[in-house]
Amino acid sequence: MKKSRIITLLTDFGQKDPFVGVMKGVIYGINPSAVIVDLTHEISPQDIFEGAFDLMQAYSYFPHGTVHIAVVDPGVGSKRESIVVDTGTYLFVAPDNGLVSLAVKNECSEPVVCRIKNDKYTLKEMSTTFHGRDIFAPVGAYLSRGVKPEKIGDKTEEYVTVEIPGLEIHGNTASGSVIHIDKYGNLITNIKKGLIDRVRKIEIKGREITKIRSYYKQGAGDEIIALTGSTGFIELSVNEKSAAAVLGAAKGEEIRVYLK
Amino acid sequence: MKKSRIITLLTDFGQKDPFVGVMKGVIYGINPSAVIVDLTHEISPQDIFEGAFDLMQAYSYFPHGTVHIAVVDPGVGSKRESIVVDTGTYLFVAPDNGLVSLAVKNECSEPVVCRIKNDKYTLKEMSTTFHGRDIFAPVGAYLSRGVKPEKIGDKTEEYVTVEIPGLEIHGNTASGSVIHIDKYGNLITNIKKGLIDRVRKIEIKGREITKIRSYYKQGAGDEIIALTGSTGFIELSVNEKSAAAVLGAAKGEEIRVYLK
Amino acid sequence: MKKSRIITLLTDFGQKDPFVGVMKGVIYGINPSAVIVDLTHEISPQDIFEGAFDLMQAYSYFPHGTVHIAVVDPGVGSKRESIVVDTGTYLFVAPDNGLVSLAVKNECSEPVVCRIKNDKYTLKEMSTTFHGRDIFAPVGAYLSRGVKPEKIGDKTEEYVTVEIPGLEIHGNTASGSVIHIDKYGNLITNIKKGLIDRVRKIEIKGREITKIRSYYKQGAGDEIIALTGSTGFIELSVNEKSAAAVLGAAKGEEIRVYLK
Repeated sequence: MKKSRIITLLTDFGQKDPFVGVMKGVIYGINPSAVIVDLTHEISPQDIFEGAFDLMQAYSYFPHGTVHIAVVDPGVGSKRESIVVDTGTYLFVAPDNGLVSLAVKNECSEPVVCRIKNDKYTLKEMSTTFHGRDIFAPVGAYLSRGVKPEKIGDKTEEYVTVEIPGLEIHGNTASGSVIHIDKYGNLITNIKKGLIDRVRKIEIKGREITKIRSYYKQGAGDEIIALTGSTGFIELSVNEKSAAAVLGAAKGEEIRVYLK
Repeated sequence: MKKSRIITLLTDFGQKDPFVGVMKGVIYGINPSAVIVDLTHEISPQDIFEGAFDLMQAYSYFPHGTVHIAVVDPGVGSKRESIVVDTGTYLFVAPDNGLVSLAVKNECSEPVVCRIKNDKYTLKEMSTTFHGRDIFAPVGAYLSRGVKPEKIGDKTEEYVTVEIPGLEIHGNTASGSVIHIDKYGNLITNIKKGLIDRVRKIEIKGREITKIRSYYKQGAGDEIIALTGSTGFIELSVNEKSAAAVLGAAKGEEIRVYLK
Repeated sequence: MKKSRIITLLTDFGQKDPFVGVMKGVIYGINPSAVIVDLTHEISPQDIFEGAFDLMQAYSYFPHGTVHIAVVDPGVGSKRESIVVDTGTYLFVAPDNGLVSLAVKNECSEPVVCRIKNDKYTLKEMSTTFHGRDIFAPVGAYLSRGVKPEKIGDKTEEYVTVEIPGLEIHGNTASGSVIHIDKYGNLITNIKKGLIDRVRKIEIKGREITKIRSYYKQGAGDEIIALTGSTGFIELSVNEKSAAAVLGAAKGEEIRVYLK
């Protein structure tokens, strides 16, 4: 594994309380030369899939060896396990609830997964409500100092995963869904960008989208266009407006795709 | 005092305007090797107690020698003083309005407090509206370079403090209050965690809470549970919901505690 | 040009999606010793003037040599150009839509402006929707490593500018407007602070403001006061309240100024 001083943080802690700042204090106490980057702290509270999706679209833009700490953790204090994952290119630290599974799967390598056990690498005084501070921050900091995952816990083959719902293709039609909505209201679908040349029409909420475009500004008025977004999926968009608001569409909304 | 490159910032400036960024520019201009950490910039506007509480729960997770700059400053430009506090373990810079007093008191040492006087350590062009930029950022940066508080101002014995309202215990009952609400809607009370084994029942807004638990997920439905939070106080919580919303409770809400 | 490791970011990306984090990953991949500072990511979506104004009020507090990356980019993916500007003191990277023009004009030097052309300094896989990641982050990172603007693109004399609407003075009266509103609801006007000693009265929304003060706390109740803000313009303010809310005033609101 290449070495990197970079540690990223993805949580649902928000930025009102000093929770994230406290995690950074713990990290710097262990690794004073760490460089910490916030991915986001605005994951919808306890929405593991959303966190997993955002981590998947962000992690690979960092230098190899980066340690990604993710904490969306409705089960904090319960018996859920905590894991470290080493994909050979990146290190991940998170509760074992699927949060890092989309990113790990995206790496297409055989990951080494360890359940965090060794309390030498966690805070001495352990709360039941803030494992971001007590477990994930210190473990991530030790990893960034070069401590091997195998020292921190026991190898396991089993860990929790979440999945992107697959596009179901039947001949020339397919059933899909909106899997993510970004802050501009763009609707990210589960149609992979490789399919864009085959898309003839997309139906959502009774509306038909036939304009396949390449950038946002090509939409006029409330017109909905489809384009390849930066996440690797086809997204539905309204120029300078929120497609989610124009359509009244939410995450999970069903779509129907007509292929050439 | 140990040396640390770390400077933390806690303000009510929000993140829409570039105020915080400007403070960082000033700091890096004075100490290019500073490492700056945001504690929060979302303190409720001009809520000194909230700022003091958040600083108290966060400051000690940083390496010794860290400089904590705090700016919640309704009196900016008026005759209120500005202070540097040296507790032997940490340095604090803030308006003299109580903002750092809960953290300083928590250190249990005899602090050295200096009123900021020496304009060698502040910006030359001084505004009457943005002392975060003109006073607190540069003073904090010079402290992190090793300048002694005594060089920046005059020692004083008097400085403004705020207090956490005490729990009033009469025999087997006690009167307390909600002193803080976090972003999940957990209600932090002024019952210290050391008391948890003596708590039999808590009354708030006509509801009785008898479930003393150890983590959030142990609550079912809208059930309110009490548990020891990460701040050292007992908090009231609803699993995956906001206890503040479920109870319609605000900061300052009175509680009644029945002890064993 | 002095060298600086500092790179600032100003965008309208918000902080919910990991867009800003991804830009930082790209930057650290190119310049591992960069120090990245967020100016703001809460520019109103696609509001180029607001971004230009915030950049103008913030950029000069950073050490000389700082690279300022700004991305408010409604035309992303269309034929709009991207530019690097070298003012001799600072470097700017942005879409060519006026976003950096107020800051550049403020420098009062003859800037070198280059249109970004050389794809050696941008990401290999280029999207049509996220040039913050694909163009602006990598170009800014290379600039901070010392790459000359002339290597990244072709010099040009023409680039898009925005202007602060001028105050129109006719004898002893002047017509102006609110050009910016900060998060406290202070109304920043286009009256430069140098004029403050000549201001006798300001009219806005039928209200007359005759109290020229020097700090916020000098206002009482809902009284509106005028004072010199930290941005170099006169602002209208209500102590501990939002002047925008009290007046029901929006950006662009007309004001009338009576001079001595």
